[in-house]
Amino acid sequence: MKPADESNATDTITTDVIRRAARIRLVAMDVDGTLTNGRIVIGEKGELAKHFSVRDGLGLTLLRRAGIELAIVTGRESTIVKRRAAELGIKRVHQNVADKRGALEQLCESLGIGLNESAFVGDDWPDLPAMLACGLAAAPVDAEPEVLTAAHWVSTRPAGAGAIRDLANFLLRAQGRFDGSLAPFRATTAR
Amino acid sequence: MKPADESNATDTITTDVIRRAARIRLVAMDVDGTLTNGRIVIGEKGELAKHFSVRDGLGLTLLRRAGIELAIVTGRESTIVKRRAAELGIKRVHQNVADKRGALEQLCESLGIGLNESAFVGDDWPDLPAMLACGLAAAPVDAEPEVLTAAHWVSTRPAGAGAIRDLANFLLRAQGRFDGSLAPFRATTAR
Amino acid sequence: MKPADESNATDTITTDVIRRAARIRLVAMDVDGTLTNGRIVIGEKGELAKHFSVRDGLGLTLLRRAGIELAIVTGRESTIVKRRAAELGIKRVHQNVADKRGALEQLCESLGIGLNESAFVGDDWPDLPAMLACGLAAAPVDAEPEVLTAAHWVSTRPAGAGAIRDLANFLLRAQGRFDGSLAPFRATTAR
Amino acid sequence: MKPADESNATDTITTDVIRRAARIRLVAMDVDGTLTNGRIVIGEKGELAKHFSVRDGLGLTLLRRAGIELAIVTGRESTIVKRRAAELGIKRVHQNVADKRGALEQLCESLGIGLNESAFVGDDWPDLPAMLACGLAAAPVDAEPEVLTAAHWVSTRPAGAGAIRDLANFLLRAQGRFDGSLAPFRATTAR
Repeated sequence: MKPADESNATDTITTDVIRRAARIRLVAMDVDGTLTNGRIVIGEKGELAKHFSVRDGLGLTLLRRAGIELAIVTGRESTIVKRRAAELGIKRVHQNVADKRGALEQLCESLGIGLNESAFVGDDWPDLPAMLACGLAAAPVDAEPEVLTAAHWVSTRPAGAGAIRDLANFLLRAQGRFDGSLAPFRATTAR
Repeated sequence: MKPADESNATDTITTDVIRRAARIRLVAMDVDGTLTNGRIVIGEKGELAKHFSVRDGLGLTLLRRAGIELAIVTGRESTIVKRRAAELGIKRVHQNVADKRGALEQLCESLGIGLNESAFVGDDWPDLPAMLACGLAAAPVDAEPEVLTAAHWVSTRPAGAGAIRDLANFLLRAQGRFDGSLAPFRATTAR
Repeated sequence: MKPADESNATDTITTDVIRRAARIRLVAMDVDGTLTNGRIVIGEKGELAKHFSVRDGLGLTLLRRAGIELAIVTGRESTIVKRRAAELGIKRVHQNVADKRGALEQLCESLGIGLNESAFVGDDWPDLPAMLACGLAAAPVDAEPEVLTAAHWVSTRPAGAGAIRDLANFLLRAQGRFDGSLAPFRATTAR
Repeated sequence: MKPADESNATDTITTDVIRRAARIRLVAMDVDGTLTNGRIVIGEKGELAKHFSVRDGLGLTLLRRAGIELAIVTGRESTIVKRRAAELGIKRVHQNVADKRGALEQLCESLGIGLNESAFVGDDWPDLPAMLACGLAAAPVDAEPEVLTAAHWVSTRPAGAGAIRDLANFLLRAQGRFDGSLAPFRATTAR
């Protein structure tokens, strides 16, 4: 199998990447700079807030409805992440994780999903081991250069502003489920 | 009537769209990604804040003064939305709405306004049914592609940064009320 | 005197505008969209925060040190504005102002400063009467089109991101005080 | 030695600048507009929050691990800065500093580090004296023009959005430690 390292993120999406996407049954994600715009908002008492994207939210809901497992794997620790995860129906939230690849492997094992059926989305160096181990390494367009190089797939929108929605759309398309996901929203088009 | 779907959002504004705008007596709007920049700001205890635009605010006030009814129709639920609506004098606030088209139809009925006299502004898939049912479907320039395709009219500014003001200006112009709305602000020009 | 309306904001700065700037002894400013980026940040209990620029802050301090009076004139009401004004040493803070031109005239009278020695900075229609009455009408580059047309001077940076600093630099230059203002920060250049 | 003033920030990085970077043992930094995006977020009770970058955070951690001393030198005062500094393991935090050059000199003396082994990162006039005294003057790309002119090195990313990470990468490269810093994140690449 072609290692992630040799893929070129700026190429058009290849058949290999679509094949990888078609197999995905689990999407695991970093938080800061991946699900958020990377801003750490600090107040008097510590972390005050994180900025998520409402469009990413719908993308994750669509993936969940399509039967894809979702998980959060982050190196930081915050109740904010639990709040957002609960809102989106994401049950698997792993915080304070030093070894993201290990966390991904455990997730796959407990779900009975192969590593090659898992996607990992990240933006910075600590995400590299998991990205290099998973079946589809994904990154927001504003990820660090070393992460873009390691990614099979790169969004067109930045983190916290639709990058995850881009990924959801891509996975749904690769799995032939995009039109079926959109259909309920157009069921009432007659007038 | 030409279905919204076949309109081309990137075309220059056509006579058809101006005719639609001239009829509008109700503007119903989604919130996140439409009245805000789409950022979900989460703190320790849940949603902490939403980011609105002061320029959108004046646009909505101008519409209200011109006798156009305003309403908010959103799938999320938050006292933040009530706060902003109160500040802008918007009395009709429908939150936690799963069926936005149904909510729009009820609004029209209770106001004695035809669906073709209503505009709906949205940015994402859940807004499509209402947009496809109303008289003028409007979207911020940074809406999802499927929404831009369904829109009769698209702003030049992004959501939360003047998109709604663009719409207010357009409606006032289409109804021949733009100069009259601006006049009071220039009443003291002599010097 | 050439009315503000006929000036062209996109022209290079003319001798007339520099002459106007050289006379300025009072700078009065709108807040939202002028001193901030125009975002209204609403939380559960109402307005939660405003986003100011640290660079604007230094610009205002430099103007104050150069003996120019500063004032805030805003249509909204918030203790947030008082906080920021206090931090910057701005004593004249007029909130909840419906008639900004009237407020400017009163300011000028109480300070013994002519209207033609006052600058007003604004971004939206409610600022027009004061801008059309003052000696130098200034606007951030992202102001509404009708305001840009009325402005003698337009910043190169947007509101809340250096627009007011641009104005401070311009006024200091027009009054021959720019190098003198910068000098103390370079007093220790020898090494 | 070529004074900082005559360097040209937009030139490609010269051998002189790389030599300066190779010597650096201390990085001292301003906060607002340097470690943050320059937004002063004011709430009802004063400063509510500062927006830092998660990517800058990892850059600073990498510098610390490479044995480089870190310090914060700011003219404002806030417990927010202490919170962020603690999170990043930065022990030397000097707030409310009027004389940044003096603070830098004291830091160097107490650490037994020469001024020419210190870098200072700043974005505005109050940072100039320290930048003109240190061995490597660095600035985010959106710094004030007078600061860009004084800088030996300028980031490609704006403040609060990766500028400090750019600097960390540059220093690690100049000191031959970049690949060694990245290596642990790629240790598990085999599959």
